[in-house]
Parts: sequence; C-alpha cells; structure tokens
Amino acid sequence: MRVLGIDCGTERTGFAVVDSQLRGHRLVAAGVIVTSPKLPLASRLCSIAQGLRDVMRLHAPGEAAIEEVFHAVNVKSTLKLAHVRGVAMLAVTEAGLSLGEYSPLEVKMSVVGYGRAEKSQVQLMVRSLLELRTPEELAVVAKEDAADAMAVAICHANHLTSQRKMGVAS
Amino acid sequence: MRVLGIDCGTERTGFAVVDSQLRGHRLVAAGVIVTSPKLPLASRLCSIAQGLRDVMRLHAPGEAAIEEVFHAVNVKSTLKLAHVRGVAMLAVTEAGLSLGEYSPLEVKMSVVGYGRAEKSQVQLMVRSLLELRTPEELAVVAKEDAADAMAVAICHANHLTSQRKMGVAS
Repeated sequence: MRVLGIDCGTERTGFAVVDSQLRGHRLVAAGVIVTSPKLPLASRLCSIAQGLRDVMRLHAPGEAAIEEVFHAVNVKSTLKLAHVRGVAMLAVTEAGLSLGEYSPLEVKMSVVGYGRAEKSQVQLMVRSLLELRTPEELAVVAKEDAADAMAVAICHANHLTSQRKMGVAS
Repeated sequence: MRVLGIDCGTERTGFAVVDSQLRGHRLVAAGVIVTSPKLPLASRLCSIAQGLRDVMRLHAPGEAAIEEVFHAVNVKSTLKLAHVRGVAMLAVTEAGLSLGEYSPLEVKMSVVGYGRAEKSQVQLMVRSLLELRTPEELAVVAKEDAADAMAVAICHANHLTSQRKMGVAS
C-alpha cells in the first residue's frame, strides 16, 4: 500500500509518501510545503492545498493519514492550524483517498514504541525504519515536519496492516 | 458589486449573495448548506466546499466575506468550526474572489448599528435592508445561518462602498 502522511502547519506542512509491504516500509517522496507568514491566511491555504494535490497527482497514494489537532496553549495558532487541517482533509478526500487520523501519542507509540518520545527519537526511528541512507534522504528526514509526516504515514500503514491481518479491513 | 457572505458552521453553513449599489442592497440568493453529524468531518468539509463552489458558479459574486472565528467556550466545536472556515476560505480564494473578514461585532455594528445586537434584531434589519417580502424570501431570512450570511455580505458591501468613497480602494 502507498500512504501519504501529512503533518499540518501554517508555515510548514510536512508530507511523506511511503510504500509499505510485509517486509517493511520504503520512502517514495517527502518534503515540506513552506508558506510565507507575510501572505494572508487564505493564500497560504491555497498553496498548501495545491502542494498536496501536486504530491497526490505525482505519486498516487491510495491512503492518507493526518495527526489529530492538539489543543495547544496558544489558541490563535491552534485555530490557524485547524484551518490548514481542514484544507488538507478536503484536498485528500476530494482526491478519493481514505483518511486515517491519529493522536501524536498514537503516532509515537507506533513508530518509537513510546508515547512521549522526543522529536529527535522519532526522526531516528523513521530514518531506521525507512532505511534512509542517501544524502537527499538524510537531508529530508532532518526536516522535522517531513520526518513527522513520515511517522504519520508509517503509523497508518502499521494500523492498516494489523487491521488486515485481523481481517477487519477490506 | 455582488458579494457572497458566508456564515460557517459544521452542521449548518449559511450563504447569501447580495447585489449592492448606491441606492441599496438586493438579495440574489441565500440558503444553508446542511451536513449530517453522522458523517465524518472530511465528508462534511467536501459537501461544504462543493456547496459554496456551486453557489459561486451559479451567481458569480465578485467579492466574498466571512466572519472571524470567535474563541467559544467549547474548544472542540471551535476547532471544528476552524476546519470549516479554512475550507470556505480556500473555496472562495481558489474561485478568484477577494475575501473580507469581520468580527461578529463589526457585522452587527454595520447592519444594526449596535455591536451587541440579538440574532433576532440582525434578522429584522437584514429583512428591512434587503426589502424581503415574498414568502420564499421571508422563509430564507427566518433561517438564522442564512440571515447571518446576509448580514456579513451587507457589512462587506458597506465597507467596500465607504472605502471607495474615500478613494482608498480600486
């Protein structure tokens, strides 16, 4: 299965396309959609939606996954993040992909095996699970938002795999 | 000028298309996009985006306006509302419309002349300003979300008119 993981952010939205099979995961593409804080939110939402649509058109994932929005201390940023998340959910669903949603805890549990793992531990595990070795791969996993998107994609792939093993999914 | 006003809601998103000229405002179309709480948020976001795109295609507004998201007591509903608002902003901006954003206070000030006006007062003023008389018009303004969308559209039209009078807008 080919999964698109998305890590939403107003300034930086990470994405990762991961192929998952019984013998493991493989990174197809990953990166960060960066939008300028100088632009109005509406324009930034357009760039993020367009960026995600481009990724889906180029790499044709069949599934998508996104983190649940956390209730951060800063209400204003959380609300902006929810705008971005709405747009990402729309882009993905309009492209016909089914969407999995996971809490940050679930993602860390799935990838690191520990719900309170640090960002750096997530990056390390993602690098190992995807066997990232080339300079390009190491450069992209060094970007926190891209690494988080990889983690979300792996979490969803693991979830689907175990569901299928249990015969509850199609 | 022809303005699309939007009143975002997860279950009920009001919309109104209003023509505004020097001698006053005229209602072109209004209604409510209703989505079932039984559906996942992603599907509901698709219905809302598609509904707004249909309205824009049918009535070709040149401007759009939306209320700023208020920080409600219920964080969960506010976050859902922000998802809807992001999707509405995307649909409008991708259709090439410029977007005005107003606080509930600004909308009420512009339409009723009083920032703490009740919903019923907004409905009454909107009905009067748009000279709504037919049974169909009275039925649509009786829907709170549609009336709120009319108020947002009138607020934006008033704002643009005064800006143009002052020669600061194009």
